[in-house]
Amino acid sequence: MGDARHFHDLTTPFRMKRGGELHGARVAYETWGTLDAGRANAILILTGLSPSAHAASNAVDPTPGWWEDMIGPGRAFDTDRYFVICVNSLGSDKGSTSPASVDPATGEPYRLTFPELSLEDVANAAYEAVRDGLGIAQLACLVGCSMGGMSALAYMVLHPGSARTHISVDTAPQAQPFAIAIRSLQREAIRLDPNWREGHYGGDVWPDHGMSIARKLGVITYRSAMEWNGRFARIRLDADERDGNQPFGFEFQVESYLEGHARRFNRQFDPNAYLYLSRASDWFDVSEYGEGSIQRGLSRIAVERALVIGVSTDILFPLEQQETIAKGLEAAGADVEFVALDSPQGHDAFLVDIENYSRAIGGFLRSL
Amino acid sequence: MGDARHFHDLTTPFRMKRGGELHGARVAYETWGTLDAGRANAILILTGLSPSAHAASNAVDPTPGWWEDMIGPGRAFDTDRYFVICVNSLGSDKGSTSPASVDPATGEPYRLTFPELSLEDVANAAYEAVRDGLGIAQLACLVGCSMGGMSALAYMVLHPGSARTHISVDTAPQAQPFAIAIRSLQREAIRLDPNWREGHYGGDVWPDHGMSIARKLGVITYRSAMEWNGRFARIRLDADERDGNQPFGFEFQVESYLEGHARRFNRQFDPNAYLYLSRASDWFDVSEYGEGSIQRGLSRIAVERALVIGVSTDILFPLEQQETIAKGLEAAGADVEFVALDSPQGHDAFLVDIENYSRAIGGFLRSL
Repeated sequence: MGDARHFHDLTTPFRMKRGGELHGARVAYETWGTLDAGRANAILILTGLSPSAHAASNAVDPTPGWWEDMIGPGRAFDTDRYFVICVNSLGSDKGSTSPASVDPATGEPYRLTFPELSLEDVANAAYEAVRDGLGIAQLACLVGCSMGGMSALAYMVLHPGSARTHISVDTAPQAQPFAIAIRSLQREAIRLDPNWREGHYGGDVWPDHGMSIARKLGVITYRSAMEWNGRFARIRLDADERDGNQPFGFEFQVESYLEGHARRFNRQFDPNAYLYLSRASDWFDVSEYGEGSIQRGLSRIAVERALVIGVSTDILFPLEQQETIAKGLEAAGADVEFVALDSPQGHDAFLVDIENYSRAIGGFLRSL
Repeated sequence: MGDARHFHDLTTPFRMKRGGELHGARVAYETWGTLDAGRANAILILTGLSPSAHAASNAVDPTPGWWEDMIGPGRAFDTDRYFVICVNSLGSDKGSTSPASVDPATGEPYRLTFPELSLEDVANAAYEAVRDGLGIAQLACLVGCSMGGMSALAYMVLHPGSARTHISVDTAPQAQPFAIAIRSLQREAIRLDPNWREGHYGGDVWPDHGMSIARKLGVITYRSAMEWNGRFARIRLDADERDGNQPFGFEFQVESYLEGHARRFNRQFDPNAYLYLSRASDWFDVSEYGEGSIQRGLSRIAVERALVIGVSTDILFPLEQQETIAKGLEAAGADVEFVALDSPQGHDAFLVDIENYSRAIGGFLRSL
């Protein structure tokens, strides 16, 4: 299988919001569909914390992407009409420069010498790829999911006129204390793992235990109790599925489900990159651009139309926060469509409840 | 300060539900008020996972108890009228026999050789203390909070006629997968701590990191996002409150709040006891007594009256589960009062929202 990623070299030095700068940094991105002559049909998708730029399969890389059923001819992101771009976040290790990358100044991986990362930096890096790499002056639509939704708000605040319309998916105008508490505990689990070694893991010494706890806690907050009542109830594992003679080992299906998620994640995502992106999510606060007011911060965003989607079962990015975004964009002059879904899958609904998300997003994009 | 605990020696051998037995085991309990001549005014309180029998101060031990404002003359549990008992759960290390106790057969602490513990065992041990230790044939009221609410259901199913009335506080007829997932992850954090040593910690080698993560995850699920939005918002710690130069150290007040909870808990609760009681909570399922049906299981409980209280913001023991208990007790013939509170404090509301809990519980007990 091929590598469908393109790479865009960022301005050198690339100055970071909180100080520090990167030299020779780049971001990875993939595209689907064809950019029209006027360069006016581009959609940019900014991702959650862990996904790569491979949102969907394409000719070069036919493996399914993380939003496979949403992108393609006739799908919600209709590639017969739109040119779709997905950028791997700066700081993520899926092709973009991250704490796992080699610092050209030392020839060694950055690890914790990577400068403090904010979602504004993630947004600025994606903006450079779109403007300078692809020559697109204005996006037809900027889409942000989860953490990517916060990155998208930063993108639009920092680059007025960069997007004609916006789709906001299960995100937040600022991190609330419940989400901060969860992410802080995820970071702590990694930091307390003796194998983390203040970022100097490698080879066989890897903070697998910390990453496992972090991932499981993530999955618990990405889904919903309601979904699990129907899906797992109190079903036990068969004897041969249990973890041997481990004292206090797994016994219920829900425990095995979480273990499977952790195993698939471990060693697939750089622990230091996880820490940087997680902290960046805690730091984001659009009210910084509105003298402490979320609504004034959002008022700096000028898009013609917006679609704001949220899910009633999302405990990490609750529906009230989606309403806040919708109201702010509307007050700023956008024509806003607000969709509150009752999907049982919680925060992850946008990855699972393709029927409802397709209807909302496809309908919005067709109406443009 | 004195020790207000009494100790009741359990039947020897004390046979456990899942096999195994204890020799020379005991439970600790405290009391408030005076048992009347007919031994008919006793209230037994069964606790959540971590509290001791010291529910309130008394002459011998004037330190405030974990339900201090609820128990005393003129309070909800009015000691001018009632004789109130609180038993430390079997398996907890606050005076009752637990994995931290010495096994008389070996002269060494049980640690993981302690037999598998269920909430039925917790219930049976408390029952023996009430019947044999205090000579009480029937409780005026059996009260169970959180895990203690499940123990109370076991108590009433296993010992018909042992309680005239019942107060069920923020509990469950069976553990649901969300609660199992949270508790499984808490146990995993302890098990993965290299200092746990399969239960053989001691001296300076103690699974503080695992216990800290377990406790913080507990506190996150015991409170509510709504409460924290008002209480912590995005308030930062002052520079001198932060944890030094720790990379990815604490920055927000909510993080410091969780750290304070973990520090107060660490070394105050035996990690092996925590594992045993946590797993016992996952195992409890009243439907085992009803051929797989919760309602049929609850139908075996015969009390004259019951008060069932729940909180809409409780994510660990959701309100629907309280409704299920109320319906089951009612179908079994009890006169049931169901109180759904909107307290913002989540599962912990019963420890914090004293005003509302006092009104409900005090009103119920006065009406008897």
